[in-house]
Amino acid sequence: MTAFRSIKELRDACASLPAGDEEAAKAAAARQDVLTKPQGSLGRLEEIAIHMARWQGRAMPRLEKVEVIVFAGSHGVTRRGVSAYPAEVTVQMVANFASGGAAINQLARAAKAELKVIPLDIDKPTEDFTEAAAMDESAFLSAVSIGYEAVSRNADLLCLGEMGIGNTTAAAAVAAALFGGSGTEWVGRGTGVDIAGLRRKAEVVDMALAFHGEGLRHPVAALARVGGRELAAIFGATLAARQYGIPVILDGFVSTAAAAPLAKAAKGGLDHAIAGHVSAEAGHKRLLQHLEMEPLLSLGMRLGEGSGACLAVNLVRSALECHAGMASFAEAGVSTREE
Amino acid sequence: MTAFRSIKELRDACASLPAGDEEAAKAAAARQDVLTKPQGSLGRLEEIAIHMARWQGRAMPRLEKVEVIVFAGSHGVTRRGVSAYPAEVTVQMVANFASGGAAINQLARAAKAELKVIPLDIDKPTEDFTEAAAMDESAFLSAVSIGYEAVSRNADLLCLGEMGIGNTTAAAAVAAALFGGSGTEWVGRGTGVDIAGLRRKAEVVDMALAFHGEGLRHPVAALARVGGRELAAIFGATLAARQYGIPVILDGFVSTAAAAPLAKAAKGGLDHAIAGHVSAEAGHKRLLQHLEMEPLLSLGMRLGEGSGACLAVNLVRSALECHAGMASFAEAGVSTREE
Repeated sequence: MTAFRSIKELRDACASLPAGDEEAAKAAAARQDVLTKPQGSLGRLEEIAIHMARWQGRAMPRLEKVEVIVFAGSHGVTRRGVSAYPAEVTVQMVANFASGGAAINQLARAAKAELKVIPLDIDKPTEDFTEAAAMDESAFLSAVSIGYEAVSRNADLLCLGEMGIGNTTAAAAVAAALFGGSGTEWVGRGTGVDIAGLRRKAEVVDMALAFHGEGLRHPVAALARVGGRELAAIFGATLAARQYGIPVILDGFVSTAAAAPLAKAAKGGLDHAIAGHVSAEAGHKRLLQHLEMEPLLSLGMRLGEGSGACLAVNLVRSALECHAGMASFAEAGVSTREE
Repeated sequence: MTAFRSIKELRDACASLPAGDEEAAKAAAARQDVLTKPQGSLGRLEEIAIHMARWQGRAMPRLEKVEVIVFAGSHGVTRRGVSAYPAEVTVQMVANFASGGAAINQLARAAKAELKVIPLDIDKPTEDFTEAAAMDESAFLSAVSIGYEAVSRNADLLCLGEMGIGNTTAAAAVAAALFGGSGTEWVGRGTGVDIAGLRRKAEVVDMALAFHGEGLRHPVAALARVGGRELAAIFGATLAARQYGIPVILDGFVSTAAAAPLAKAAKGGLDHAIAGHVSAEAGHKRLLQHLEMEPLLSLGMRLGEGSGACLAVNLVRSALECHAGMASFAEAGVSTREE
């Protein structure tokens, strides 16, 4: 039983995304303008409050249930030497998530968020996408559906992260398929490859672009052919969040590349998502520019796992605390500006 | 009874600042390198953990007691039309802090920090510094001492903010006195003045620089002559924190300008401080560059009150949660990189 039984069903879902609630956004903006501060002086905290209002559909957005989902997948392309770490680290890190020892465990706790870790057939790597589709239609739809169904309908905010040795190469291939450019423009050091590794990554991306050619034209097809299971699941979860009225915080390069096909498949398809941070991975900044997303944080992080998204949660919480808790000029008896 | 009875005593205190604990910093850095993540992949979160270790003097820094102190002062220079808001707003906002309606009340709660608001003779504005010293020696030492004594010795982290209609003009004058440049290079829109107001602010700074001349040469004297009571108090609190082994988070332009004389008075005088954010106030970015401080956040905020500093607290908390809670590669049985 999967949420999507065919590519056509999935494309149809992407083509009929609900719009934001402009009434709620307008009411939130009007409230921001009478709170005891110079108008606009909370900068992006004001934008966040309005964003949350628009996509939760309520003028006073709430943040009781924050969900962080980390999807993990294994990549056939690792056999081409694209990572500084051996492929078995994916499985080992999933165990580390389960026992609470990874960065995301600490960051989710600090964000008062519930962490779900969802491994996707991690004992069964995708195909090497330089010579085959990473996933066939059934594997792809299954991963998208797992992502879709992983989202709690009553979440107030959703952070999407990933783990998968080799997946910055997959993300680079997806980004190149969606926005053009060759491998060198999209690959980066990932977990820390050397110059030779970086060159191999670029070559692998170029091989994939050449091998799949026109097969990458539709953004959803590109994700199936050169993505990975955890990327497909993030895509599905981003789509579910839109349909459930849940704002999303994207994490780094992989998380953003995974969600990006939604922006290409439908105008405004990622309008419910915020970039939690811009990572140190070279392609991320470029990708955010293509998506016209301004990241909240820029702290030189490049870990994935949802770490940057999770770190942004307390900014959202602070924005909403100000939105809900501040007094207006009238309530506080504070004089307004001299005009 | 004041902490400092003479300018000489104060200058002496600035000249004998304790150094950081390099052993603790080294131990923290060594720990970061074995945690289950690629080395360096938590970016500035790693630096924060090491910074906190260095300045708290413990390899495993703690964050139980976070103190936010907002100092408020009134400025004689407001009579020259340098603010978009009337001078009485300072008193009204102090009342708003007391009743919990301001941004900083919400942000301190979200940061799990204790908020102290300390008004400094707010019914008695400083002198108009275009034609006199803002404070005489006694008023200045009193404000510095109040700031110094406001810091709890057992705080684990200190955020310093301010409220004072007119104080971005004072901050611009202090910055110009310390780092050179004329008024236009340092003034900004503050709470939202128009072009004419901006021009007036620049003129006021230039008048002050001309009036005080060589009197501004020593950084401590500059703070007394063209600063304000809340700026002097922030300076005193920053000094106290250094002597007590408490890391500091500075807020925006005013907070940073108030602490800046310590960096000029002693080499590395602000090494225990982090810039919580860079504000939208024009001079702040320039000031941080002079101080060689890289802000943690850049969210277009320009409110003061300690808002940007407070917002950075949860980043510090997250950094320390990772530092303390993550498993090492050995503990988690995760393979290290392939060399």
